[in-house]
Amino acid sequence: MRVEGAWRRAIELAEDGRSVEVLDQTKLPYTVAWLRLGELAEVVRAIRDMQIRGAPLIGATAAYGVAIALRTDASDAGLARACAELAATRPTAINLRWALDRMRASVTSLAPSARCEAAFAEAARVCDEDVGLCEAIGDHGEAVIRAAAERAPGRPVRVLTHCNAGWLATVDWGTALAPIYKAHERGIAVHVWVDETRPRNQGLLTAWELAQHGVPHTVIADNAGGHLMQRGEVDLCLVGTDRTTRGGDVCNKIGTYLKALAAHDNGVPFYAAVPSPSIDWTIEDGTAIPIEERSADEVRFIRGHRIIPETSPVANPAFDVTPRRYVTGLITERGIAASADGLRVLFPDHG
Amino acid sequence: MRVEGAWRRAIELAEDGRSVEVLDQTKLPYTVAWLRLGELAEVVRAIRDMQIRGAPLIGATAAYGVAIALRTDASDAGLARACAELAATRPTAINLRWALDRMRASVTSLAPSARCEAAFAEAARVCDEDVGLCEAIGDHGEAVIRAAAERAPGRPVRVLTHCNAGWLATVDWGTALAPIYKAHERGIAVHVWVDETRPRNQGLLTAWELAQHGVPHTVIADNAGGHLMQRGEVDLCLVGTDRTTRGGDVCNKIGTYLKALAAHDNGVPFYAAVPSPSIDWTIEDGTAIPIEERSADEVRFIRGHRIIPETSPVANPAFDVTPRRYVTGLITERGIAASADGLRVLFPDHG
Repeated sequence: MRVEGAWRRAIELAEDGRSVEVLDQTKLPYTVAWLRLGELAEVVRAIRDMQIRGAPLIGATAAYGVAIALRTDASDAGLARACAELAATRPTAINLRWALDRMRASVTSLAPSARCEAAFAEAARVCDEDVGLCEAIGDHGEAVIRAAAERAPGRPVRVLTHCNAGWLATVDWGTALAPIYKAHERGIAVHVWVDETRPRNQGLLTAWELAQHGVPHTVIADNAGGHLMQRGEVDLCLVGTDRTTRGGDVCNKIGTYLKALAAHDNGVPFYAAVPSPSIDWTIEDGTAIPIEERSADEVRFIRGHRIIPETSPVANPAFDVTPRRYVTGLITERGIAASADGLRVLFPDHG
Repeated sequence: MRVEGAWRRAIELAEDGRSVEVLDQTKLPYTVAWLRLGELAEVVRAIRDMQIRGAPLIGATAAYGVAIALRTDASDAGLARACAELAATRPTAINLRWALDRMRASVTSLAPSARCEAAFAEAARVCDEDVGLCEAIGDHGEAVIRAAAERAPGRPVRVLTHCNAGWLATVDWGTALAPIYKAHERGIAVHVWVDETRPRNQGLLTAWELAQHGVPHTVIADNAGGHLMQRGEVDLCLVGTDRTTRGGDVCNKIGTYLKALAAHDNGVPFYAAVPSPSIDWTIEDGTAIPIEERSADEVRFIRGHRIIPETSPVANPAFDVTPRRYVTGLITERGIAASADGLRVLFPDHG
């Protein structure tokens, strides 16, 4: 997508062919800084310290991390050590383990001398495939936005989103934002309500992305979305997911559930963009998903400034689960599922 | 209530008998600073710049503002000018106009030489009556908390609140927090989930109050409350109101509606503390209440630090309306109404 006018991916092979460049997301939206990652330790730090974030992008970056590590040590021990170090960076990111398993499988039968080149090629395929999933989600979701536009000619389709499920969370296009970018590219007028998304304020990443791409948007406090829906100012909600169960329960950034309730109460369609690697086929009921409790300092501090005194206890659950009954549709790369049955029809191999 | 160990009100007549002292709420929770207001201009500034806030406290402070102004100019023109200046500070605060009308009525028939002393006495009555309303709400609401405690012996009653409807918003006790203080004083174990309440973070005032009084509490991002209710960690919700209609729709700080939806979805009782001066008997339907759109800078900045770039458009609706169907009970000074009919039984003069 566009960054300062140029078309970029969130992760790119550098010109030297042996390192990658990623946007440092801890500096956004104030500074656009590209990081060069040429050593395993740099990749590990980038994931662990959330210089890059978003499950698909974590997976893609880890894939290149394996390739980078193999340049220095392509032995079986070197491969195992690289995978172990990368796996330890973010314990809950499913795509991370998926990517490492895939990289290991792609090189383990090769002679060490052939592994590095093969790994770079496989990492490139991981990235290209992620772009393909996101584009397909974008095309399916664009139809939803187009239908909303046809129901309300002469004004923009007003979409509310929570957190950042844009191209910064993937390699390109994003998940929840892909349909918005597709609609915008095709001339459909869209306006996005961007939840600020406390405590980490990933909504500011969404606002930055949309601004870079010229998509009209307005940032709001997380408290405001229900009121906007009551006033008829939201046509549809569109969010990402960190894990969706086979039953269709959607685990996503904390606060998503509240917006789904408001959407339901006001007859506003509520969609989740769900690439199939985000589906947990082993779980039916979303209440079985463990919810990460993150550091209180994420709530206490904003951009380095303390806002809550040390004396106040703080809790910080990072995700919540929106029950399937409040979800109008799951937008996958194979089409939109309106129910768990619909999901099984789209993915019969997991039925 | 307790401030640094001493029992204080949010507004007190100073020892000189001709000025008042108020806590500067723009400095809380980091600094406890009492402001001396001895001139009309100082009172006007304190209300306008939100050094004091909360509808009941605004009313009480304005009442003393009239008395303070009459010391300098007790003529009819002086009285009219003082009321006009005070009325212009916060156009939407209903209690402000109510207090000014009452002050004007109490002195207008007196000789100018007698007005100042009468006004100070009337302002003291306004304050004492507000304390009485809040204490009565506290007693009625305490019964709700006590009943919850009896249903779950051996652990604290977990109450979720939004914004600040504590004694800082009134003269003493508060509205939504009064039942919590009463329960705590009477030995009922209570734990309060405190919504941070973006954009102005009035939850930090609530946390500060509760800490001063020794009430256990935990601050959470506004996004977290729904998840906590899903996990069974909230026994009841208790909020204040800026205006409640005769039909029982509750207008309160933006985001209240989302918590009411989550409470309803999870079978958690949802109560609003409603002193009768907050009831608008002229309106049946809450959608008729105009919602103030406040400055985008309230969202852009936190404690003077910019968090959202100037380039991102921002919207900031300050209130929302919770439809009566999501409200378990309205806790008034005359008892708890479970419906609009119940409200009319408690206040037959307005039926």
